[in-house]
Amino acid sequence: MHIPSIAPTNDAALSRLLADAINNKTKPLGSLGRLETLAAQLGLIQQSTRVAIDQPAILVFAGDHGIVAEGVSAYPQDVTWQMVENFLADGAAINVFARQNGCALHVVDAGVNHDFGRRAGLLDRKVGPGTRNFAHQPAMSRQELGTALEHGMALVRDLPGNVVGFGEMGIGNTTAAAALMHKLTGLPLSRCVGAGTGLSAEGILRKEQVVAAAVEHHVGVVEPLDVLATFGGFEIAMMTGAMLKAAELRKVLLIDGFIVTSALLVAARLQPAILDYCVFAHCSDENGHRLMLEALGAQPLLHLGLRLGEGTGSALALPLLHAAANFLGEMATFASAQVSTASE
Amino acid sequence: MHIPSIAPTNDAALSRLLADAINNKTKPLGSLGRLETLAAQLGLIQQSTRVAIDQPAILVFAGDHGIVAEGVSAYPQDVTWQMVENFLADGAAINVFARQNGCALHVVDAGVNHDFGRRAGLLDRKVGPGTRNFAHQPAMSRQELGTALEHGMALVRDLPGNVVGFGEMGIGNTTAAAALMHKLTGLPLSRCVGAGTGLSAEGILRKEQVVAAAVEHHVGVVEPLDVLATFGGFEIAMMTGAMLKAAELRKVLLIDGFIVTSALLVAARLQPAILDYCVFAHCSDENGHRLMLEALGAQPLLHLGLRLGEGTGSALALPLLHAAANFLGEMATFASAQVSTASE
Repeated sequence: MHIPSIAPTNDAALSRLLADAINNKTKPLGSLGRLETLAAQLGLIQQSTRVAIDQPAILVFAGDHGIVAEGVSAYPQDVTWQMVENFLADGAAINVFARQNGCALHVVDAGVNHDFGRRAGLLDRKVGPGTRNFAHQPAMSRQELGTALEHGMALVRDLPGNVVGFGEMGIGNTTAAAALMHKLTGLPLSRCVGAGTGLSAEGILRKEQVVAAAVEHHVGVVEPLDVLATFGGFEIAMMTGAMLKAAELRKVLLIDGFIVTSALLVAARLQPAILDYCVFAHCSDENGHRLMLEALGAQPLLHLGLRLGEGTGSALALPLLHAAANFLGEMATFASAQVSTASE
Repeated sequence: MHIPSIAPTNDAALSRLLADAINNKTKPLGSLGRLETLAAQLGLIQQSTRVAIDQPAILVFAGDHGIVAEGVSAYPQDVTWQMVENFLADGAAINVFARQNGCALHVVDAGVNHDFGRRAGLLDRKVGPGTRNFAHQPAMSRQELGTALEHGMALVRDLPGNVVGFGEMGIGNTTAAAALMHKLTGLPLSRCVGAGTGLSAEGILRKEQVVAAAVEHHVGVVEPLDVLATFGGFEIAMMTGAMLKAAELRKVLLIDGFIVTSALLVAARLQPAILDYCVFAHCSDENGHRLMLEALGAQPLLHLGLRLGEGTGSALALPLLHAAANFLGEMATFASAQVSTASE
């Protein structure tokens, strides 16, 4: 298993040039807030004071989870393939938001428990018909993990453009993500497990007990890729691979909600420099996401109480990436516009 | 002075229809968070379960302030007219963001201390060459106030489209807005006065002392329009008029930062139902804006640490209005997409 090597983006000279370019724009110092740090980050990723958002694309990875046999989700497993059909029919939230914001959308079957046949618009990278139930055995073998990671890398290698957003669909995958979070951050399970698609308080408690028992069952598992294979999903592992490759290729990674961030958590344990390439689209309402973001030192752009997944937060944050690139590229400077500077 | 009458948007039957329409979309209940409440609000304003964002426009009102003689701003007064020139030359942040997000932009001279002559693209509604210094006398007469309000109403009456965003430019206008906030909310001045375009801690203290002395000087002033005439600006008063008319015409009001919200504060004291029509674009980093929003019971969409004004927050929030309208209009329902509903 070859893990891509990722170079940190830090470059003191370029950082100074970017700060000068931002500060010379006709606005009070620092007054564009997060857009200014975002513009500087884009410049460091693209190694230029001229930044561009070119052909952004969102990859939505779908997969099923054996752990649903333990009754951890408010929705039946069939919803995974039904929602994939909805993506293909252009009817889901991610279709609406990606279309609105000029973002290409690619739907990947990473391991859905359903035979779609050959379908236009669906990228068939099925590793298996859903993972095994990690209450009793590892979710996937190391070979399956390798296949998922490789598929993710290959998908990103074939993408045009310099921004990749990540999204997912998979009934049961907040349970997998909560287990990954607990194992990789050490935070207590009660801070990692949430309502997912809409569990009751009783349902959340049951879900926490299921994960606690599974963690106990797999007690010796600590290495990040072992954790991913044991508790993860095919869509999560494929995202981890895709993210590593995207950062190696110096693309901007647009990180969505709880499950997408759990895939990044694994990638960041393997290659910490990947975080330099990540823009965190939003803080989800799913319990645990805020703490997961904190564990990564991440500052999300949007706080809209979203908890839908699919990459919807990534699609909604895209106009802010454009705004960061555009103010840097298009605003006048104090000198060019002959505007007086601060007198104090 | 005729104040437009504004009808509350509440309609229990339509609210239920909107909730049903939102809840039947293929997503977990409530999972689009703030976009769901926004979609419902748009429906109530437009009195329909089909909402549309039609020809959005941002009005940027510019005006000068006599209070700058007291040394309350980090920038010289000339920056007001210089920035108006920058708007006309397409070089300011608001130009970039309005263009990016498909929003018309109209620049209004409400009372800048500069002779622009007749200029293509500049709406000349100059009430006077800046307000008087409210440290010593009322910023404007009641007649000037009436003129400013009337101009604001007429400008909105002539606008096509169903969304009006508000923005402003005026060196010294955070001082005026802080005085309005203090007088109309009763919050202590230290919570109302901030750095504006970038005062030092010492500068902020001086600004607070200037406002405190002025408030003492005009101690008997309490009625909202008197407060506006005494401490406001021509651009602020014109916004107040424009907002009242926009709500009367059942347009969506897109509220920007500290100064725009201070204009709304006056309008809401006159016609509380105006708040039903307001979408709060963002929470500014200017000290006081968060508390001003709280005083209005407002929940802003964006938290990006902006403190630039010009309507930049309004322009940046516009894609979220589109997203709310689009998910309601375009997403499939559980029934239409044949997706299973929650089992719990």
